[in-house]
Amino acid sequence: MRFNTIFQFFVPKDDKFITLFEKASTNLLEASEVLKELIVTEDVALRNEMVQQIKDIERKGDDITHRIFEELNKNFITPFDREDIQSLTSSIDDVLDNINGACYKIKLYKPKKITTDFNKMCECLNQCAIEISIAVYELRYIKNSKKILQSCININSFENIADDLYHNYLTFLFDNEKDAIELIKMKEIMQNFERAVDCAENVSDVIKSIIIKNS
Amino acid sequence: MRFNTIFQFFVPKDDKFITLFEKASTNLLEASEVLKELIVTEDVALRNEMVQQIKDIERKGDDITHRIFEELNKNFITPFDREDIQSLTSSIDDVLDNINGACYKIKLYKPKKITTDFNKMCECLNQCAIEISIAVYELRYIKNSKKILQSCININSFENIADDLYHNYLTFLFDNEKDAIELIKMKEIMQNFERAVDCAENVSDVIKSIIIKNS
Amino acid sequence: MRFNTIFQFFVPKDDKFITLFEKASTNLLEASEVLKELIVTEDVALRNEMVQQIKDIERKGDDITHRIFEELNKNFITPFDREDIQSLTSSIDDVLDNINGACYKIKLYKPKKITTDFNKMCECLNQCAIEISIAVYELRYIKNSKKILQSCININSFENIADDLYHNYLTFLFDNEKDAIELIKMKEIMQNFERAVDCAENVSDVIKSIIIKNS
Repeated sequence: MRFNTIFQFFVPKDDKFITLFEKASTNLLEASEVLKELIVTEDVALRNEMVQQIKDIERKGDDITHRIFEELNKNFITPFDREDIQSLTSSIDDVLDNINGACYKIKLYKPKKITTDFNKMCECLNQCAIEISIAVYELRYIKNSKKILQSCININSFENIADDLYHNYLTFLFDNEKDAIELIKMKEIMQNFERAVDCAENVSDVIKSIIIKNS
Repeated sequence: MRFNTIFQFFVPKDDKFITLFEKASTNLLEASEVLKELIVTEDVALRNEMVQQIKDIERKGDDITHRIFEELNKNFITPFDREDIQSLTSSIDDVLDNINGACYKIKLYKPKKITTDFNKMCECLNQCAIEISIAVYELRYIKNSKKILQSCININSFENIADDLYHNYLTFLFDNEKDAIELIKMKEIMQNFERAVDCAENVSDVIKSIIIKNS
Repeated sequence: MRFNTIFQFFVPKDDKFITLFEKASTNLLEASEVLKELIVTEDVALRNEMVQQIKDIERKGDDITHRIFEELNKNFITPFDREDIQSLTSSIDDVLDNINGACYKIKLYKPKKITTDFNKMCECLNQCAIEISIAVYELRYIKNSKKILQSCININSFENIADDLYHNYLTFLFDNEKDAIELIKMKEIMQNFERAVDCAENVSDVIKSIIIKNS
């Protein structure tokens, strides 16, 4: 029996999942930090480099997702309901997917201008990623649920802000953008960001449901 | 023990779910009635008021959805399969979401003209909501499944009508609308309505599956 | 007891599902063969005829899907996990739905030109359908999983090719197409094809997961 195996034997099974969730949330946070820079960069070459960085982070996220589902298949006893583990994993993955989708469209569509509404939206997304990270890292100490629930409330507030941002932006776009192709570009990119925030709210909902069941 | 609690004790558990489903279907029906008026109104201020009404109804629907999921978490014994309860709840919610999405787009996009195809589509949606309501209210007397199945058949017919309406409208739109931005607006709004009808068909499918399992 | 009933009695239950999966995969393969012809046909009347053929194949696919779900409701013992049976069924159905959706849009939108990128995409889809068919027909001999896993690897390679095709096509489209309405048409049709390939990858993922659990 190698040290590794002994070690694994003593660490409670739960730990594996929580460690993977922590990795997933840190990964998402990293993407949202790159995104904040990407969205204000006017240097196209540099921007495309950051699009690639986010693509790499998204692939790393896929690996983490994959490992969580593998662990689910291997373990009969899990720290939370199997369904909640699946939902938490998928919803974190969905946030990242939408961020990656938006960035890829920025690279492919080459929009003529990226307005400050996009910065605000990405700021919102970054705040959501921070709160998700806080909540996920607190899942180890689930009995002390106050801090976790506060993060969930904060995510909901950011989702409301993002919702208003999105609707105001669409009104602005349809009122002012006369170039249909530019309108299509901006609308789709912003939509992906808005969906990313929606998915962050799904993350918060799953976490809340985990807290309720385990308190 | 207060009266309320005693009362709850004697009412079979099943009842809670069915009562909530009834509320959800009545709520959807209400939205579809407002929608029928909204779609023929040319007064923009009045129309936006009705968009807000539908938004409020949609929020109320979210609360009902939330309560059904809470009850699911609390109750081990449920009147139908847990999965069917989830699907029925989500599919009713999806109809409402798509109605709300279409209306919100009408408010944001300010389309130049809303043709009679939209009235016909919303008439279809209203008919679906009526049949859903009939079917859901009959779920209490599930052994008498004939009436329920007739409503399901009717929903399928309306879905076929809506499908034709949608495809004819798209053909018309791509043949005639030369303003790309107007085309985008109309296409997206109509798409949301068509999806709402599709989701109504999902409601019908779940109800049929409940009937089959419980007969 | 008629011969049919006796026969059914001796055939293991598993068989029903695998036979239905085989039908579903053959049906998908047929659609992808028609598609390959449809996409290179310049005769609009003939093309619309093939769109109708694919619509018919899609309906047949719906019937097969329906029968699999009925069997799931009737049988307590299934050859694979119930969830995997559902996912395999739905994912094959999704490929077909997206092929049908793309073809329907070709009929409704009447795009001015269909470039060779579309042929390449449909070639990819056909290859995926061939590999899905191989993998599904091997599910009877699941212990010999090497051939199945090779097909899954091949599907992943085709999905990567399709992904590149899609992104290059979008870049080309946004760089060159100045007619916004034509751009909308081409973008949506190509998107449906790309989603069809994505769904083929989902089929491959479910099959891999079935292999892992049953080996």
